[in-house]
Amino acid sequence: MKAIMKTSPEPGLTFTTDAPQPRVAGAHEVLIKVRATAICGTDVDIYKSDEDLTRRMSKAFPVITGHEFCGEVVETGKNVKRARVGDYVSAEMHILCNECYNCRTGAGHACINTVIKGIDSHGCFAEYVVVPDSNIVPLPADLPEEVAAYLDAIGNAVHTCSAVDMVAKRVAILGAGPMGIMAARIAKMCGAREVLVTDVNEMLLSVAREHGADHVFNVAKPEEREEFLRVCRKENTRRGVDVALEMSGHPSAYGDLFACLRMGGEAALLGLPRHPLTVNFTKDIIFKGLTIKGIIGRKTYDTWFRMLGLIEAGLLDTLKCIVTHQMPLEEFQRGFDVKLKGEGLKVVFRP
Amino acid sequence: MKAIMKTSPEPGLTFTTDAPQPRVAGAHEVLIKVRATAICGTDVDIYKSDEDLTRRMSKAFPVITGHEFCGEVVETGKNVKRARVGDYVSAEMHILCNECYNCRTGAGHACINTVIKGIDSHGCFAEYVVVPDSNIVPLPADLPEEVAAYLDAIGNAVHTCSAVDMVAKRVAILGAGPMGIMAARIAKMCGAREVLVTDVNEMLLSVAREHGADHVFNVAKPEEREEFLRVCRKENTRRGVDVALEMSGHPSAYGDLFACLRMGGEAALLGLPRHPLTVNFTKDIIFKGLTIKGIIGRKTYDTWFRMLGLIEAGLLDTLKCIVTHQMPLEEFQRGFDVKLKGEGLKVVFRP
Amino acid sequence: MKAIMKTSPEPGLTFTTDAPQPRVAGAHEVLIKVRATAICGTDVDIYKSDEDLTRRMSKAFPVITGHEFCGEVVETGKNVKRARVGDYVSAEMHILCNECYNCRTGAGHACINTVIKGIDSHGCFAEYVVVPDSNIVPLPADLPEEVAAYLDAIGNAVHTCSAVDMVAKRVAILGAGPMGIMAARIAKMCGAREVLVTDVNEMLLSVAREHGADHVFNVAKPEEREEFLRVCRKENTRRGVDVALEMSGHPSAYGDLFACLRMGGEAALLGLPRHPLTVNFTKDIIFKGLTIKGIIGRKTYDTWFRMLGLIEAGLLDTLKCIVTHQMPLEEFQRGFDVKLKGEGLKVVFRP
Amino acid sequence: MKAIMKTSPEPGLTFTTDAPQPRVAGAHEVLIKVRATAICGTDVDIYKSDEDLTRRMSKAFPVITGHEFCGEVVETGKNVKRARVGDYVSAEMHILCNECYNCRTGAGHACINTVIKGIDSHGCFAEYVVVPDSNIVPLPADLPEEVAAYLDAIGNAVHTCSAVDMVAKRVAILGAGPMGIMAARIAKMCGAREVLVTDVNEMLLSVAREHGADHVFNVAKPEEREEFLRVCRKENTRRGVDVALEMSGHPSAYGDLFACLRMGGEAALLGLPRHPLTVNFTKDIIFKGLTIKGIIGRKTYDTWFRMLGLIEAGLLDTLKCIVTHQMPLEEFQRGFDVKLKGEGLKVVFRP
Repeated sequence: MKAIMKTSPEPGLTFTTDAPQPRVAGAHEVLIKVRATAICGTDVDIYKSDEDLTRRMSKAFPVITGHEFCGEVVETGKNVKRARVGDYVSAEMHILCNECYNCRTGAGHACINTVIKGIDSHGCFAEYVVVPDSNIVPLPADLPEEVAAYLDAIGNAVHTCSAVDMVAKRVAILGAGPMGIMAARIAKMCGAREVLVTDVNEMLLSVAREHGADHVFNVAKPEEREEFLRVCRKENTRRGVDVALEMSGHPSAYGDLFACLRMGGEAALLGLPRHPLTVNFTKDIIFKGLTIKGIIGRKTYDTWFRMLGLIEAGLLDTLKCIVTHQMPLEEFQRGFDVKLKGEGLKVVFRP
Repeated sequence: MKAIMKTSPEPGLTFTTDAPQPRVAGAHEVLIKVRATAICGTDVDIYKSDEDLTRRMSKAFPVITGHEFCGEVVETGKNVKRARVGDYVSAEMHILCNECYNCRTGAGHACINTVIKGIDSHGCFAEYVVVPDSNIVPLPADLPEEVAAYLDAIGNAVHTCSAVDMVAKRVAILGAGPMGIMAARIAKMCGAREVLVTDVNEMLLSVAREHGADHVFNVAKPEEREEFLRVCRKENTRRGVDVALEMSGHPSAYGDLFACLRMGGEAALLGLPRHPLTVNFTKDIIFKGLTIKGIIGRKTYDTWFRMLGLIEAGLLDTLKCIVTHQMPLEEFQRGFDVKLKGEGLKVVFRP
Repeated sequence: MKAIMKTSPEPGLTFTTDAPQPRVAGAHEVLIKVRATAICGTDVDIYKSDEDLTRRMSKAFPVITGHEFCGEVVETGKNVKRARVGDYVSAEMHILCNECYNCRTGAGHACINTVIKGIDSHGCFAEYVVVPDSNIVPLPADLPEEVAAYLDAIGNAVHTCSAVDMVAKRVAILGAGPMGIMAARIAKMCGAREVLVTDVNEMLLSVAREHGADHVFNVAKPEEREEFLRVCRKENTRRGVDVALEMSGHPSAYGDLFACLRMGGEAALLGLPRHPLTVNFTKDIIFKGLTIKGIIGRKTYDTWFRMLGLIEAGLLDTLKCIVTHQMPLEEFQRGFDVKLKGEGLKVVFRP
Repeated sequence: MKAIMKTSPEPGLTFTTDAPQPRVAGAHEVLIKVRATAICGTDVDIYKSDEDLTRRMSKAFPVITGHEFCGEVVETGKNVKRARVGDYVSAEMHILCNECYNCRTGAGHACINTVIKGIDSHGCFAEYVVVPDSNIVPLPADLPEEVAAYLDAIGNAVHTCSAVDMVAKRVAILGAGPMGIMAARIAKMCGAREVLVTDVNEMLLSVAREHGADHVFNVAKPEEREEFLRVCRKENTRRGVDVALEMSGHPSAYGDLFACLRMGGEAALLGLPRHPLTVNFTKDIIFKGLTIKGIIGRKTYDTWFRMLGLIEAGLLDTLKCIVTHQMPLEEFQRGFDVKLKGEGLKVVFRP
């Protein structure tokens, strides 16, 4: 079958037409024909052969990449309960151990033995993919495939927003990539009073403004960065925003994060800094009484229920706008070029 | 009256016998005769003329230092409701604005306009001190004065422990000064299953072991540090402790903090690192899904109720043991020498 | 001055033009000229001489009624900090003791010594009212007076909605009076996926449908009540709504409440049943694993911040629609008639 | 094999020696040789042919009863991961669907399709029992069998206590059966400041006093009931306890529950009232701002981790004292007589 694979530590990915088609091997497995699949930031890092990721993946070479998708069930193991042939589904691609403390206490997103399909085993940049029954999420028939293609990523944004209380809060979002834009819209849907978004890309900021951001700031320009902090601190009963979501992973955004929050504020961190950062814990975290939450994966499956609920409540328009490019799987190189050049938001492949 | 003052940016403190006695100036003020007052870590930093503290205090020079005490009410303003002459009391020495968002929403410990007595205005290393009515905390008659002298500090430990769920948890406490020792005991009283304490001082570790710590580790010795991490990770369903309390402010303790916690664990930070620290946010916070809480002050007045409740429930023995030195206020230099040499835990002055 | 008073246990209220104008007696008091004031459900009960209320109020006879209002500051005590002459303000009319455990721990809405202005002492159905400085809430200049007139009631709805998590939830609201209608809109603003509202009054239900309710049900009709429960239970993975808000106080609504919630659901109770109710705790609460919250007053002042934040975020349109009648204070009898006949939502007086 | 069965709607149970031995039928099943098994309150209701229970069980007649036990694994299905032959284990006997919203969001204790072994299918009053792999809980070798026999019930007490915050709180526990006694001890272990226990049985109250209760009250005596309420309300800053745990199911205990709690207090309900109760919601729940939680089952498997953690932290002594009777399974009638006459606490059978 057609697939995009990582076959060696060298940068880049390989398109093939003769990857072996996966099969239902166990009683609880489900075979899905992929209808649409999307590029995640992690896939870009895989393309670029990020050091940590490459080391991790090298044990699985050659491995089919990709971990965001939707498709149609075409075969089910004999004990499968959650899916039937013909069902329109997506799936959680973090395969949990179900045995560790976190899995056994409802915190499977922090499973200590997670296997990620598309990294540790075959993923969904392909015509077919196999996932365990428990990971299947049935979808409403009217959910557009290009949106269903990236529910995994939507879940990251929803999980981040769910980690804090948004009602009547002023919220700063650092980074206006797909995550930041989704978070802006979700924050507003969850009752945020004012949403401020920063980035260094005007195009992204203008999309954010259309989808929930009350104010946007190009923090590449010193005067806009000043203005951002001034607006954050404008209320003299708070002198800072209530909530900050770090969606960029950029070191300077961390500076903004600690500068923009009020005493007693809350931060959720989703963006991945490439290098260690130097932080003044005493002044910026302890004396400010901050709460900081590292966000990983999606709550299985609370986040999935939440994202489908938010889609039903009106999130869909934003999600459709975020898909800027769609193309056949064969044109994967063009899709990655879009991401590498920062010219688009979500890129969806049709296998 | 007798008092210990900071009069200039130079290191050291000054004892005087002719400090002006404070008076009840407003209708809501209370004059207290100090019976016992204790040295806090911040007082040691003031003694050493820590740069940030000295800059802050210079606006108030000459200022009476000290912010932990108990005493007897000797005069009350005409609208005072919480205290009568003769009452045995302590007081919260963070004077809140009562007007900012945090004050108005029950989070006064994060008041953005806090004035700290003993830093920004006259404190309690003296024969008398004046505090606002609202800050008075009446004490049970049988609470020993040398313990009541440092309720403020006990509150820091209680506030830190209250920021996390202890029930049936494995808890690592980094630093076995007074804070770490109190936290060890409080953690056990609040249902912790196992408490592990680290420090580099054998004497402190032995006190911790007597007061709640199930295991102690001298992390100055590489093999004990290894053993500490091995014990933290011994359960193969968690591979780390559930909760870590940073009570030392030491950079190497931060390394231990991130190394000892399980995926999805919680950290509360009370110790004050003297310098910025370099942290791998991606690996150590985000991918681990940690929650990190900066701890400031005490919840006004939830923490005070909690600490008096925990004393009633059995914390007193530990608190008495922590007072290693008592002396007249006149001998303040000897008291500070004890702290500077790391030879004692709590040092209490009797004015 | 003009005022509406309760002067005896007899049903009805008395309009007078020679009530003594209140004066600033203490250093922390504020005198406000009332611009607009609204009838609360409690005022209707006072009009009807509800037994418990009348007994409570008899100690204060003759007493000016009314506890929802906005106005302009005309005089301030010498220590007043939160208001200046000319300010446009509302006020929390629950006067707290600031001394009890709840007041001292950020739960002043549950103060054990609350004095309610308009019940226990003079209220705001008058030309002037005096309130303590701490209770003053400054308002944005562009907030319409007829809406600002009932912020107290808006706060009840916000407090109720804040007691539960709305994000992506299905929410049933029992009762479509002003509280239910506000709650429907607030629930949607806070991320609710679907809001179902019941009442027995078609006019109210149609307003609810315009302001947040996805579906409304006239539960006076058995077939619509059946349909309500069928819709609540339609998802076979939940068989009930996640959240129910009781806003009617009606016994049959309590039946619906327990019938409509899923296992593990949450209920918040704001409506006041006139009589004790018989409930099957085993089947309907314990075996269902429900959490039930009694809602009293407003969080001081978290709820006030939230309601002003939600108004800024878009709640205003709904709030304006809820004001169905405005009239001079002199015509109070006509206003109460509207409420007694159930012909309007909020009735606002202009003194 | 030997077993105790319910074979008809008639009161009583039947001992047999020729019940069919269960077998490992599925790949995920585990066969366990029962070493010790305990009588639960529900078993007494089954014995007495409680109407609701009998109707539910009639679909399964004849059915082996019992749902609390420990034993040794003697056979495992081919995909079993959590247990090996020879392991000393207990098991959660609520078999969850793993498909409903609650199961998928970490709230399996509120599964809408729970099958309870010992009620809906064969239980553990027998020589052998089969349970699914996921439900197995491995035990430490040194946990006494007579305690391990009733971990299920210990979990109910732990789950109830975990529903509220105990630290420095005053706690009333209504009912001093095994649940109330365990709760008293757990409350103290979790930091409760003062624990008050009520019952009508002096023997039970004296056990409670030895295991955590600071004060006990025989509320069958009017003067002790008065004294109970007086002690609950003795603090004039609270006028009631912070937390109440209803462990009796008795109507008069509900009266005490609402009378003893302070404004803003919390109640957790575990005891099962046999009949509907009449409650003044307005006065006792809404105006008091109470939070009330119905407690069902145990959190799977958070509660199991907590109870094993609390046992490690010192709960064991209390648990051993609660086992007042042990006997061979053949003498089941004697065991039930003990419970029916209220002469013992936990009765353990040895098959």
